[in-house]
Parts: sequence; C-alpha cells; structure tokens
Amino acid sequence: MTYCIGILVRDGLVMMADTRTNAGVDNISTYRKLRVFGTQPGRCLAVSSAGSLSVTQAAVAKLTDAMTLPGADERDTLDNAPSMFRAAQLVGIALREAKSVIEATIDNDKIATGASLLFGGSIGGRKPRLFLIYGSGNFIECQSDTPFLQIGEHKYGKPILDRQITYDTPIAEAIKVGLISFSSTMRSNLAVGLPIDLLTIEPGCSEPGLNHRIDHEDAYYRELDDRWGAALQAAQREIPTPPYGPPQVI
Amino acid sequence: MTYCIGILVRDGLVMMADTRTNAGVDNISTYRKLRVFGTQPGRCLAVSSAGSLSVTQAAVAKLTDAMTLPGADERDTLDNAPSMFRAAQLVGIALREAKSVIEATIDNDKIATGASLLFGGSIGGRKPRLFLIYGSGNFIECQSDTPFLQIGEHKYGKPILDRQITYDTPIAEAIKVGLISFSSTMRSNLAVGLPIDLLTIEPGCSEPGLNHRIDHEDAYYRELDDRWGAALQAAQREIPTPPYGPPQVI
Repeated sequence: MTYCIGILVRDGLVMMADTRTNAGVDNISTYRKLRVFGTQPGRCLAVSSAGSLSVTQAAVAKLTDAMTLPGADERDTLDNAPSMFRAAQLVGIALREAKSVIEATIDNDKIATGASLLFGGSIGGRKPRLFLIYGSGNFIECQSDTPFLQIGEHKYGKPILDRQITYDTPIAEAIKVGLISFSSTMRSNLAVGLPIDLLTIEPGCSEPGLNHRIDHEDAYYRELDDRWGAALQAAQREIPTPPYGPPQVI
Repeated sequence: MTYCIGILVRDGLVMMADTRTNAGVDNISTYRKLRVFGTQPGRCLAVSSAGSLSVTQAAVAKLTDAMTLPGADERDTLDNAPSMFRAAQLVGIALREAKSVIEATIDNDKIATGASLLFGGSIGGRKPRLFLIYGSGNFIECQSDTPFLQIGEHKYGKPILDRQITYDTPIAEAIKVGLISFSSTMRSNLAVGLPIDLLTIEPGCSEPGLNHRIDHEDAYYRELDDRWGAALQAAQREIPTPPYGPPQVI
C-alpha cells in the first residue's frame, strides 16, 4: 500500500509520499513514488502514485519517454502542454493506457491493477494546481474549500488534515500537518512507512523549492512524532472526566 | 456505514456505537446498534453491529427469541451459556445462519450482506471478555496487548486508540479516548454520526454500570470536541517549524 498527500495552499503546493510497497507482507520494498517531471524553464510538475506499481511505473515511464526519447512520436508532452489542465489530461491518458495494456496481459490472474496518481505543478508562472487522476484517466482538481487530496491509505491521516488545513495555512505549517498525518498513518498501518519524500512547488518555479527525503534518522521527524504523542496525552488529560456518572459495580 | 468500538481494560469493558445507517446517501436513518442481552443475574452481555442491517438484526432477533419465546427449541442460549467463549460461539452461529438465509434469498441482486459484531460481557462474576465476530461465525478475542477492537469505519479513529489506550487505562479515560476516536471519525466520514450509545460492563455485574446515549445536545461531548480541536491546534503550533530550509521561490 501507499500514502500520498497533496496540499494546495495560497502560497504553493506541498506533495508528500511514503516509499513502502508490498506484494504481500513477506515482500516489502522501498520505491520512490514521488517524481518530478520536466526539463523546460518556467514549469515544474510532479506526480505521486498509489496502487499497482507495474501500472504506475509504466504510466510514468511513458510520459518521460515522450519527453526525452529522440524520435518519440508524441507531439503533446508534459514539456509543451500549455496548461496544467492539458498536462493532467496527458497524465490521465498515460495512466489509462498503461492500465489497459497490463490488464490485457493479466487475463484471469485476479491481480489488482487499480492505480491512482496525484499530479501537481505550475506552468508559465501561474499558480500551482493539483489533480487526483483515477485509473480510467478521468480526474478531479483540488480546490480551496478542501485544499488537499490523498491517495492510498488515506483514512488514518485524514482527520488531522480535515481539522488543521485551510487554504490560508502557510507552507511550513502544511508540511508539519502533513508529517503528523503520516505519523498517525504509519503508527496504525504497516503498509505505509519511512522514508517520506517531500517537495514544494511555488508559482513560477522551474524546480521544486524543496525536494527532501525524510528517513529513519531524521531528527526533526522523530521530534515531531514524540512531541505530537506527548501533546495528545496532555490534551487528553486536560479534558474533564466524562460526567455520565462513575460506572457502578453491582 | 457504522463505527463501533470495544475497549477492554483492567477495570472492565467499554462498548460504544454510533447510530447512523445508510442505504445510499439519500437514505440515512438512526438505528440503535448497541444492545444489551440477557435476563439472568450474574451475567451482562452486549453486542454492537456493523454491515448489513437486515443480517445483524436477524442475528440479534434470533438470539433474543431463543431466550424469551416460550417453546423456543434452542437448548443453549445466551441466558445459560456457561462461559463467554460458549456465548460467542452462539452469537457466531446466529450471525452465520442469518447471513446465509438472507444470501439465499438475494440471488444475484449484488446486495452486500457483509456483517460483523462486537460481542462482550461478563458471566459468573468473571472478568469481562470481548470478541469480534465475523460474518462466517468465526471470531477473535481481544487481548491485553491490543486492548480494543473496532468494526465498521475503523481507520479514521484508530490512530488515537493506538496511541492512547493500554490495558491499564482507567475506564473513564477509555470512554474519553473512545469519544475522541468517534469525534475524529465523524468529522471525516458522514456515514458515522450522533447519537453515540455507550455502555460499560464490570466484573460480576448483572447490568451495565453505565448505559447512556450521547446526542447532539450533550454538553460534555460538545466540550470534548471543541477542546480536542483547540488542543490539536495548540500542539501543532508548539512543534517547531520544519528545518528543511524555507522553500525558495526561483
């Protein structure tokens, strides 16, 4: 499994992804699931992936080949897409095609090919945009009323995002809340694990403002995890005892 | 959907269940999903349910009829089961039979008949025990290493239980943490909603020490929800800013 978040606030875009993949609990590996695209100035695009690794890797490779291989016959690529909407369409097409090619070969093996992507970035100096792209290639766009999207094991870490993230949250706070969301998820589900890849994209950038991997040795993450746990215990202690009457032993 | 928790600590058992059912978002109702069984002194049993309401209601009705109907032909009932293990077997049989009878009538309607129960209680003055009973009638028992079980929409509210509940948690604190878990779940998922039914069972009881419904007007629950939100915000503020370097606008 996997957990990926995209948080789109007024100041820019934060994308985070864990790196754990598993094909059964006896086959756990570390794979980068957050990747930056593009070689052109004035655009910075990134994608994170959840679901079938063979499908999402094929989709990302297809998009990369179209930009980098000499003689590639795609005219429309992420390097020349004029808008984030058009770029998201290209990503959706690549994901749908990768999925259908693989599904056709799998026959009746009952192997899951479900996959989804978060795709975000900025083109031409405009504000970053963020999309959740489904396996069929259709997608939804993140908007300021609910300024985040998640894929993968999203439920454990959703309450903290629901409570703490608004469109006006500063980027540094969005990173902090995102890490708390990862911390909650990783404590409750072994299918999500360190390292966490983290990047930020601001309007007009040609590369991520921040592109960092948080591993087991990361002192800040360990402190955040400890402090959060201690703060929750303190918060619990400060809430009065339930007034429903002490349970009576009869 | 539904959310039910059972927390089994040294001092006793806490069971909590929401009351929301839905057959599509345009068909939402309030149903009690936490019920107390039994009419015999020295035993106190309770069950909460998730999944197909027709299946779980049929299972509970079957167990109740066996105890209360004159001439019922079941010799083994929840009123005379000599142990919680034997009682859990009876509950498992009732659930499996209810599910298979209903499945046989549904044919190919593709209607979900998945269902699960939390079953807990105390018999003969012994310590309470807690079981999670699956639709096929098999079950697992809660143990002190992980002193809680959940059914229904369990992921949103699991991190707080993982962090805060141990076997030595006092009952009043277990209720508090359980309510925080419900609060997180209800903020993130509309399929779980107030009122919350809450009961406690202590060793040797013949009825719940506490049997209470928390509705929208409940002042304590509203205060808990507000305080918890404020405490999370304060905790977030007190965690230092991420040191990964301020994102640079290029």
